[in-house]
Amino acid sequence: MNTEPIMVIKLGGGEGIDAGPTVRAIAHRVARGERIVLVHGGSHETNELSRTLGRPPQFITSPSGHTSRRTDRPTLEVFLMAYCGLVNKSIVEELRRLGVDAVGLSGIDAGIWRGERKGAIRSVEDGRVTLVRDDLSGRVTGVDGAFLSSLLDRGLTPVLTPPAITDDGVAINVDADRAAAATASALDADRLLLLSNVPGVLKDVHDPTSLITSAGPEDERVRNAAHGRMKNKVLAAEEALAGGVRTVVIGPASGEDPVGAALDGAGTRFEGVPA
Amino acid sequence: MNTEPIMVIKLGGGEGIDAGPTVRAIAHRVARGERIVLVHGGSHETNELSRTLGRPPQFITSPSGHTSRRTDRPTLEVFLMAYCGLVNKSIVEELRRLGVDAVGLSGIDAGIWRGERKGAIRSVEDGRVTLVRDDLSGRVTGVDGAFLSSLLDRGLTPVLTPPAITDDGVAINVDADRAAAATASALDADRLLLLSNVPGVLKDVHDPTSLITSAGPEDERVRNAAHGRMKNKVLAAEEALAGGVRTVVIGPASGEDPVGAALDGAGTRFEGVPA
Repeated sequence: MNTEPIMVIKLGGGEGIDAGPTVRAIAHRVARGERIVLVHGGSHETNELSRTLGRPPQFITSPSGHTSRRTDRPTLEVFLMAYCGLVNKSIVEELRRLGVDAVGLSGIDAGIWRGERKGAIRSVEDGRVTLVRDDLSGRVTGVDGAFLSSLLDRGLTPVLTPPAITDDGVAINVDADRAAAATASALDADRLLLLSNVPGVLKDVHDPTSLITSAGPEDERVRNAAHGRMKNKVLAAEEALAGGVRTVVIGPASGEDPVGAALDGAGTRFEGVPA
Repeated sequence: MNTEPIMVIKLGGGEGIDAGPTVRAIAHRVARGERIVLVHGGSHETNELSRTLGRPPQFITSPSGHTSRRTDRPTLEVFLMAYCGLVNKSIVEELRRLGVDAVGLSGIDAGIWRGERKGAIRSVEDGRVTLVRDDLSGRVTGVDGAFLSSLLDRGLTPVLTPPAITDDGVAINVDADRAAAATASALDADRLLLLSNVPGVLKDVHDPTSLITSAGPEDERVRNAAHGRMKNKVLAAEEALAGGVRTVVIGPASGEDPVGAALDGAGTRFEGVPA
């Protein structure tokens, strides 16, 4: 059995992210015997498909200013088409073309990502707070690490994507960064890379030279610098460290070898054991 | 290890087919300890999505009159969204809701369905024969039965869908009936059910009372009665029998319990060893 440490890589699905460099870097490493689990998003493809289907994406803004996708059932179906269909299978196809024995799965499949659905969500619309009760979103509460390990033991490279599934069998939209963190913890992975269209955590989001290069496990400087979607990435990094992952990097998916770069110092590196 | 014989069920994806009764029948049987592999189509959802996306489906008619989907790359991407995204995950979600530990996979994933791409295809257009060279369709030439068996041994119920993948990593559209037959053979399944919106093989396609209830392994009466898409189903039945499957039924996916009905005499039953 391969005892190579496991690395979990989350590749964002936002606008302008080219999966190519990350996918090629993974193929190169798997060919050398590394064990990698890839988790991906698909928000840009979902938004594009929603618009083409005449159902423009809607977002919920919480009273604290946090924004999330409004996921009613028709939106979840578009989500399944984009994340589980187009994006997941295109990545698996490309990995296989590059010689990787990849297997694409959603968090629904085999109950890999168990989750809890949110109750009513408070949403600010036109200055008034309303309650959204039928939203199909939530968070991952359990990962079937034994099943994923069995795939890795067969030499397979899992390619995972939301949604997750509740105990009573309802598919829910979950944050893929935090799902990747839960997966890394469940697999006793030693490294988690969160790669997307950002250089890392910036002290000043408008100043790309203000990158915070290293962070501790509960780092107020980083927490205060993280806004919008970066809040979830920092939360994911903290959850992974708390779950036993040795190193987490929030870094860019761009460049020739984004994986090598993230391991060699690009982006924001989180290390250390939470107090 | 569970030594219960394996049954492969192919559920068609044509217009008017309700997956509900077949999915509920499978859940009932899996709860009793039966081992089932479900293969599904998705042609109706693909056609609908193609039209909504402004890319109406196109079909190729061969000089012999056989009709198949024209699968260029944009069509294959719609195919991934419909088959691997919407249909596959919706079925897995419903099975999980009913207590089945289902896992949805395409033939690409883990290289479950290896295939060969067709060379140039002869197409009749306006009475003239032209050659289509960029079509992404083909046929299954190998099934990874060991991987599927390992899933069954974990108590999982695989839910499989096209496309398949070539040895050099190109996703190809394949006939799901014949893919199901190849899967049944590779798993040493004892039964294969091909359920869709037909009552079985009819002597006269316009006369629903002309059902042929039983057939041999190379049955000229059945071959002569099969036209259009039924030709592929009969070919699939013959290939499964030649591959060691004991019983194949071509029958309806309708009614309260389509699986029980097919096993109890509905549809056209194929039995016997080819000469």
